[in-house]
Amino acid sequence: MNKHRLMSPGPTPVPEKVLLRMADTMIHHRTPQFQAVLKDVNIKIKKVFQTENPVLIFASSGSGAMETSVVNLLSKGDKALVIRGGKFGERFSEICKVYGVETVDYDVTWGESADIETLEKLLKDNPGIKVVYSTLCETSTGVVNNIEAIAKIVADTKAVLVVDAISGLTADELKTDEWGVDVTICGSQKGLMLPPGLAFLSISPKAQKLVEASDLPKYYFDLKAALKSYKKDDTPWTPAVSLIMGLNLVLDMMLKEGMGNIIKRHARLADLTRSAVKAMGLEIFAKTPSNAVTSVKVPEGVDGSALVKKMRDEQGITVAGGQGNFKGKIFRIAHLGYMDVYDTISAISGIEIVLKELGYNVKLGSGVAKIETLLT
Amino acid sequence: MNKHRLMSPGPTPVPEKVLLRMADTMIHHRTPQFQAVLKDVNIKIKKVFQTENPVLIFASSGSGAMETSVVNLLSKGDKALVIRGGKFGERFSEICKVYGVETVDYDVTWGESADIETLEKLLKDNPGIKVVYSTLCETSTGVVNNIEAIAKIVADTKAVLVVDAISGLTADELKTDEWGVDVTICGSQKGLMLPPGLAFLSISPKAQKLVEASDLPKYYFDLKAALKSYKKDDTPWTPAVSLIMGLNLVLDMMLKEGMGNIIKRHARLADLTRSAVKAMGLEIFAKTPSNAVTSVKVPEGVDGSALVKKMRDEQGITVAGGQGNFKGKIFRIAHLGYMDVYDTISAISGIEIVLKELGYNVKLGSGVAKIETLLT
Repeated sequence: MNKHRLMSPGPTPVPEKVLLRMADTMIHHRTPQFQAVLKDVNIKIKKVFQTENPVLIFASSGSGAMETSVVNLLSKGDKALVIRGGKFGERFSEICKVYGVETVDYDVTWGESADIETLEKLLKDNPGIKVVYSTLCETSTGVVNNIEAIAKIVADTKAVLVVDAISGLTADELKTDEWGVDVTICGSQKGLMLPPGLAFLSISPKAQKLVEASDLPKYYFDLKAALKSYKKDDTPWTPAVSLIMGLNLVLDMMLKEGMGNIIKRHARLADLTRSAVKAMGLEIFAKTPSNAVTSVKVPEGVDGSALVKKMRDEQGITVAGGQGNFKGKIFRIAHLGYMDVYDTISAISGIEIVLKELGYNVKLGSGVAKIETLLT
Repeated sequence: MNKHRLMSPGPTPVPEKVLLRMADTMIHHRTPQFQAVLKDVNIKIKKVFQTENPVLIFASSGSGAMETSVVNLLSKGDKALVIRGGKFGERFSEICKVYGVETVDYDVTWGESADIETLEKLLKDNPGIKVVYSTLCETSTGVVNNIEAIAKIVADTKAVLVVDAISGLTADELKTDEWGVDVTICGSQKGLMLPPGLAFLSISPKAQKLVEASDLPKYYFDLKAALKSYKKDDTPWTPAVSLIMGLNLVLDMMLKEGMGNIIKRHARLADLTRSAVKAMGLEIFAKTPSNAVTSVKVPEGVDGSALVKKMRDEQGITVAGGQGNFKGKIFRIAHLGYMDVYDTISAISGIEIVLKELGYNVKLGSGVAKIETLLT
């Protein structure tokens, strides 16, 4: 018997009491009873997004909210700048392309974060940019971008800033309003500790003006309709009721722990993991590592896909492999959501065992010992 | 204390064991473990849709699948015929309009079903129609359309037939393949006895050819991507894992009961309800009533909105009011999904009590007595 231990950057483990809350009797969504829940959720979620702006909720995966941020802010022939340092940055370009939006693609080497001077130059060279897209944590590489600095540069232009914080929110600091982020996007199955099925998008007044002007076609992801319903604590389409009931409880848990403490917890787990991994003789892949997920280079001679597979199928611990060109070359351990020190220790222990089995000369217990040392 | 009794045409009650299945430990979606579940689901759901074609699953509400059927089957400037006899028929026209698709709107009087000869004439007069949209059960009126006859007419043309069976599937007979329905759309929170958050779309080879040709923009709802992933029992975007775990169990329950028996159960509950309502001196609104939901005319002198409100807030029984022009003029009692005879009796009993309170001269117990008589 192996328990299932989710140590991937989404889906993440769901707290048992949240699972049970979602198992409560189904209620109808067009009732004062559900609208009271939504009203409560709408107030509390602003604190998690660190914004006073509306945070809209969709029944979709995070990619749906990414599409929402393209089809509602832009018009045909508009130009957007996309910071692409991994699979999820690239997704914004793909969506723009589908809708006839021209993109200036700033391709950052995978494993590195966006360079602020380069971004500044790109914005100067392309004065017509309407929207800048960035990821907070680029899940595919484990890199966190310096959104505060990016936002400062974007603030000097007419463009709005959209941040994909799907895996980063609650792990890496993101002061949406204070830093001047216009749109923050998130998904339910990451730091928000819920099953997948909800996507979130906060929107500033500046970005709402673009919504008014946008001529791209949309229906399900229409922000005008969503904003109109939002004012009445309602949704244009049937919401994912059970997930929203769970969200209400998750938000209570988060506000009780406190956003500052949550980010500190993630930072601590990330730091312990990086220290452990280095103690095992391994190398961190991300130059500016996120608190959401630690990407580790697979050591030479070791089959990276076998590592992930053995971890999952033999140890019951789901870590993530690499994506794109880094398939088999990196693996990723999450610190995201409902995770604590002993989850991290279990993951490190499992990796020690599996690396040994795969012929890598690791000193058993070296990573775990490092964590214990740092904890005492 | 009043229990919450959902007697609305979606969301419908979720069986307790399904609620608990969805509360099981979260697993990752890109694993052989989840793919085995999806493979199982993909096979079983075909029997519910009565098709051999792929049934694709989206993390969205039913409206998302309706949009999917527009943006993937049509191209800009194409012409579609939309049978509109209520709010949900009209939605197809709204979506087409957003995407620059011309529609021939066949406006059926609310409460009536589509007339086959009129449809035949419309198709003859408009030879360029590429897609015909119909609802199975028009939830807003409680009318069931004669899809078998509609499909026969459409089969004589080059058009494909899309049926919104969101509330009708499992309640009203729908032989997708046998009748020649190209696309059947459904949502999770109706006859499928799940919380809202999943949408479904089955697609015939003929309709898949239109997908190849369509030039309308789409990303999240892209059927090419969905069909490609489907072949590997995968999804392009993160699926709503917990809902799909519940779906797997729901499908087992449904196949055990048998599709024929399920439809018979719905027909019986609908019949009992109609008889009870008539025994109370009320009139059925739909001329060709669906087995999913019974729409009843609010008797003169009674406030229809107060009826729905009192039922919900005082009796704990959620029935639906009217929509559009029929707000306050009709109310709707569902027979959909996880409902049995005593749910129906409770709803009828509640209506007797509330009608009496609202000053309507109902003989208390008359509706319930009628049901009991029919059951003995």
